Amino acid sequence: MAAPADLAGVQVLAFDIFGTVVDWHGSIVRELQELYPEVDGDAFARAWRAGYQPAMARVRSGELGWTRIDELHRLILDQILPPFGLAHLDEAARRHLNRVWHRLDPWPDSVAGLTRLKARYTLCTLSNGNLGLLTNMAKRAGLPWDCVLSAEVFRAYKPDPATYLGVANVFDLAPAQVMLVAAHHDDLAGARACGLRTAYIERPLEFGAGHPKEVAPRPGNDLHCASLLALADRLGC
Amino acid sequence: MAAPADLAGVQVLAFDIFGTVVDWHGSIVRELQELYPEVDGDAFARAWRAGYQPAMARVRSGELGWTRIDELHRLILDQILPPFGLAHLDEAARRHLNRVWHRLDPWPDSVAGLTRLKARYTLCTLSNGNLGLLTNMAKRAGLPWDCVLSAEVFRAYKPDPATYLGVANVFDLAPAQVMLVAAHHDDLAGARACGLRTAYIERPLEFGAGHPKEVAPRPGNDLHCASLLALADRLGC
Repeated sequence: MAAPADLAGVQVLAFDIFGTVVDWHGSIVRELQELYPEVDGDAFARAWRAGYQPAMARVRSGELGWTRIDELHRLILDQILPPFGLAHLDEAARRHLNRVWHRLDPWPDSVAGLTRLKARYTLCTLSNGNLGLLTNMAKRAGLPWDCVLSAEVFRAYKPDPATYLGVANVFDLAPAQVMLVAAHHDDLAGARACGLRTAYIERPLEFGAGHPKEVAPRPGNDLHCASLLALADRLGC
Repeated sequence: MAAPADLAGVQVLAFDIFGTVVDWHGSIVRELQELYPEVDGDAFARAWRAGYQPAMARVRSGELGWTRIDELHRLILDQILPPFGLAHLDEAARRHLNRVWHRLDPWPDSVAGLTRLKARYTLCTLSNGNLGLLTNMAKRAGLPWDCVLSAEVFRAYKPDPATYLGVANVFDLAPAQVMLVAAHHDDLAGARACGLRTAYIERPLEFGAGHPKEVAPRPGNDLHCASLLALADRLGC
């Protein structure tokens, strides 16, 4: 099966990462369970992630200068350790725990789906995660990117247009020749406003089985898929 | 065999590309022979490459604003077409020929050597070539990078220290934990001055069989190897 005719011009697929390609919640819960079984891993993972948008907002507003996600994750971590009873962690333990974001596991369909898509498309990341984080994650998890792109390259966080248009510019393509693949509607809306094509991926368990996410189709996206394997099916890969 | 003890801390290998990993001269000669057999491909390839350093010098001096290699290659191409009897090429033909730099073939040892090295090290490019060029090249040639880095990311051309130190910074490593692999002594000297480890790769045919390059060992580099397979041997991969 070929790609839908109106998507025939797409050459590059750019992927959101946290939640779309890798399971941040489950990975952090599993690591907490192993290292600090007395802590409520589910609540800890959600608290850490909940600090993410506010931390990036401090960069966007100029309150913080350009700061990589590794550093933002660490700022949030230092704030949530005391209420979770982990204020005693020393510097080495904090550094190790903060790098859990480099060790996130992919969703079960991610590697197989990306491998099929790679045969026809150029695959890149487009994440607010930093280049080192994304590279370490890909190497550990076997994610077969052709190119690792990040907010770090464009010095702007999604949904800043500089990120979406930056991908098209890197590959010397028109925006409509790039498709953003993401599990988050705000990210997809940002890409769409820049002229990119968009594919929504359902990840109902992004926040854990206890907090199912609403994933019903919404208008506006070119594709709505249950997984990256389903995306490969829809694109004829 | 393990890596030499003094190189045990190296975690990232950063590769120069043009001449070190891919054979720009031979690839351009082959493409010219096919497209424009009346042209002296050897002289054409060397003339094109000879314009490379002067073009980057115009960016470094500020005469040109930040300009990607694709654009610099095109500026040079437009200058050399008339003396080689190709002034009649139209825009589409010029665009296609300019993209030959995206279609360069690897040296025969490159893919096998990189594949062995990748099992132990994180492999990235560190080229003055732009991200799109390097990604397209890697996809076509099967170069298994973990991460594509470029002067484009750091907005500075090698041998600017921002490029060598930029790689260490991306991976949150000390400079001595990064090794530059290159076939050019000026590039290696720039890296060494920043505290990186260095490996020289002999590429005696970089400028073609008619113009053999002097490749005798010089002091200063940590390793001197005949190929990327020899580098994998030396690093115990």
